[in-house]
Amino acid sequence: MRQVKIIEKKQRGAPLTSDEIRSFIEQYVEGKIPDYQMSALLMAIYFQGMNIDETVCLTRVMLDSGARVDFSDIPNKCVDKHSTGGVGDKLSLIVAPTVASCGGMVPMISGRGLGHTGGTLDKLESIPGFNVNLSPEQIKNQTLSIGVALAGQDAELVPADKKIYSLRDVTATVRSLPLVASSIISKKAAEGVEALVLDVKIGEGAIFKDEETTESLAKLLVRVGEEFGIETVALLTDMNQPLGYAVGNWLEVKECVELMNDGDGAQDLLELNRALSATMLKICQVFPTVAEGMDEVDQVIANGNSYRKFLEIVKAQSGDTSVIENLDLYPKSSNNRELLSPVSGYISDINARMCGELCMELGAGRKKIDDELDYGAGVLLFKKKGDNIEKGEPLLMLSAESKSKLESMWENIINIYRFDNSPPDESPLIRKVVHSRGETDWDDFIKS
Amino acid sequence: MRQVKIIEKKQRGAPLTSDEIRSFIEQYVEGKIPDYQMSALLMAIYFQGMNIDETVCLTRVMLDSGARVDFSDIPNKCVDKHSTGGVGDKLSLIVAPTVASCGGMVPMISGRGLGHTGGTLDKLESIPGFNVNLSPEQIKNQTLSIGVALAGQDAELVPADKKIYSLRDVTATVRSLPLVASSIISKKAAEGVEALVLDVKIGEGAIFKDEETTESLAKLLVRVGEEFGIETVALLTDMNQPLGYAVGNWLEVKECVELMNDGDGAQDLLELNRALSATMLKICQVFPTVAEGMDEVDQVIANGNSYRKFLEIVKAQSGDTSVIENLDLYPKSSNNRELLSPVSGYISDINARMCGELCMELGAGRKKIDDELDYGAGVLLFKKKGDNIEKGEPLLMLSAESKSKLESMWENIINIYRFDNSPPDESPLIRKVVHSRGETDWDDFIKS
Repeated sequence: MRQVKIIEKKQRGAPLTSDEIRSFIEQYVEGKIPDYQMSALLMAIYFQGMNIDETVCLTRVMLDSGARVDFSDIPNKCVDKHSTGGVGDKLSLIVAPTVASCGGMVPMISGRGLGHTGGTLDKLESIPGFNVNLSPEQIKNQTLSIGVALAGQDAELVPADKKIYSLRDVTATVRSLPLVASSIISKKAAEGVEALVLDVKIGEGAIFKDEETTESLAKLLVRVGEEFGIETVALLTDMNQPLGYAVGNWLEVKECVELMNDGDGAQDLLELNRALSATMLKICQVFPTVAEGMDEVDQVIANGNSYRKFLEIVKAQSGDTSVIENLDLYPKSSNNRELLSPVSGYISDINARMCGELCMELGAGRKKIDDELDYGAGVLLFKKKGDNIEKGEPLLMLSAESKSKLESMWENIINIYRFDNSPPDESPLIRKVVHSRGETDWDDFIKS
Repeated sequence: MRQVKIIEKKQRGAPLTSDEIRSFIEQYVEGKIPDYQMSALLMAIYFQGMNIDETVCLTRVMLDSGARVDFSDIPNKCVDKHSTGGVGDKLSLIVAPTVASCGGMVPMISGRGLGHTGGTLDKLESIPGFNVNLSPEQIKNQTLSIGVALAGQDAELVPADKKIYSLRDVTATVRSLPLVASSIISKKAAEGVEALVLDVKIGEGAIFKDEETTESLAKLLVRVGEEFGIETVALLTDMNQPLGYAVGNWLEVKECVELMNDGDGAQDLLELNRALSATMLKICQVFPTVAEGMDEVDQVIANGNSYRKFLEIVKAQSGDTSVIENLDLYPKSSNNRELLSPVSGYISDINARMCGELCMELGAGRKKIDDELDYGAGVLLFKKKGDNIEKGEPLLMLSAESKSKLESMWENIINIYRFDNSPPDESPLIRKVVHSRGETDWDDFIKS
């Protein structure tokens, strides 16, 4: 009955003791508490929340459930970046090689896409042969040799989170601040980083749509991160329209490679890469200020060092570098269809959530954990929010292996757009910065 | 993903459509939706509730999940009584034979004890050989032949409730008004009754302690009952101290047999039996008024007809009638110990919940669904609330097969009592009556 008493206690809003949290989670991981009791507790936590002590305790118990990568024998501070999930959010593929080529050490652990948001691992695996299954030892060795590793969550790392996350995903208990925070920070602590930049998304395509909850999440993440000795900074960034032009696994890899290869690309990608990478370089003490980091980031993007570092990663992780060096070698999707604009005017909105959901339906994402992906499937936008378009001009291209899936999406795809006669108000990509000293504007943060 | 969407919808407080409720429950019963998703939905319902339409729909879907006993070919209205669960609540054992011996038809389906409340089936099974596993056909035949059957929930009857109830019990989702109401009414509709008296408990030992929630439950039960063509009356009755003197399976059977045999016994049992039985007799149209029913109930208790009907039931259901006819034949518990009063004064309270929990620990109840019971274990009170006691006089007797269990309870048992220098205020056993015409005082109800 003890488990039921713990569920009841949280259900009536009382804080759980560390012993209660530890025994529940440990027994769950050992298989002594069944999924149905854990999902009941998760739903009770969804409704009643957890205070900071409970959240830190939950994070610690999850961390203690598995192995840790130990970087304590090297002088450098390892750094990582984590996004709370977005549509077309391919930043990890650019940020990781960028920071590494500027001298940072990046042992990055990423996730898979599920629901309307994409996942870095799926994008990487669209590169033939790319191996994301690295052991803690392999992550450490590769980070020491080339400065960066892009891996999935090894079974040894935070098994509690792995088990709980799968359950949250199918029980509508993902959107809970303490559950999100403990999941992210336990993984980052396990991968041995001492510095962490969080890209906390806000808006239509984000985990939380409203600014207030998103800010609370950012503050909680920073607070819990600091408890584990991780210097943590959270950037609150816009996720109303997709990031960049491509949504879909290979399409996004291609966009990143093109951007790093010629030093040019979507403005939002360039801006966010500069911000995230420079913040990472500052807090892992490669550069004393964000501004200096930004200069260096601009250089490695422009001079091709980021691109070459990305090639090094692909090679180190057994990926086929030929399709990166010659993007045209990659197999074309069997079905590609352009959508033409039905009107002339300005694009006032591109709904990121709907766009993500449509790409999932096309085969770019999973509805169930074991769904197979169509790596070439997705959307390539030709225009973004604020752009002017003439009637009949191409708006986007849909690609998929399955003709029937593409056709079933066709009617709906236009609904991701809103048009207007005048250009929309400009909204900043980076809204705010939260760190242990409180929150601040992005502009002030750079100068500080 | 459809299941998750349904969980999410309830989670944000939106009413579910009948299609959503039906598909979720049906798929769960078929094993296509796993326990962990059902428990997440149950917890969301716990927090967000269900409106009357949802509750009626849930009840109907549960009812449709199994077979129904069909009494439509006979002219009499079958009637049942259901209690929301209490400590020492042995009323079914008295009410069923009483109503049957007054001419009512009672196809009664009962449950097992779990947690601090006892269950009628466990009490019946303490009689050697007593068979509670009757098929719908057997329930019907026995009701037609002797006017009453006391059965468990056959696998054919409301399998959805059976499956959901076990899950609720271990996920802290029992205390939810729509879940309680749909569980009770679906079972009563399946057993084919057209009239139902509910004994809705209120107080320390009840499912809900507070009066407001208990009244809401009573109103909901009456409302949902009426939707299924069942004339439903709910009596709100006190469950602060245990009912009668005995708590524990065989101890309670013994108390009932003694009461029916000599027509005398605990005042609360006699009063509640008179009220419940007479109300049942009125709504199944055996007597035109509650008052006339009460007179008849007093007679069958006094003249031994109730007792003889109980013997008939035991015989019909393969129970050993010799231990009923000679209670001393029943094996004595190996360990029996009397508690003497540490003070002189009035007993101002006997905590029903604690008493029920202690009996469970002694072996009279289950912590887990498959725990074996010690049928002789329990508590026999010698004094009740309001009684005067001298220091050193016996307060109660504890009985159990396990000496160590008895000893481990010994220190705590005194804590169920509160003593005072003056007698406590009298509180009515029957607080209120709720029926389709609204709520009323018990006294008004009898006269109406």
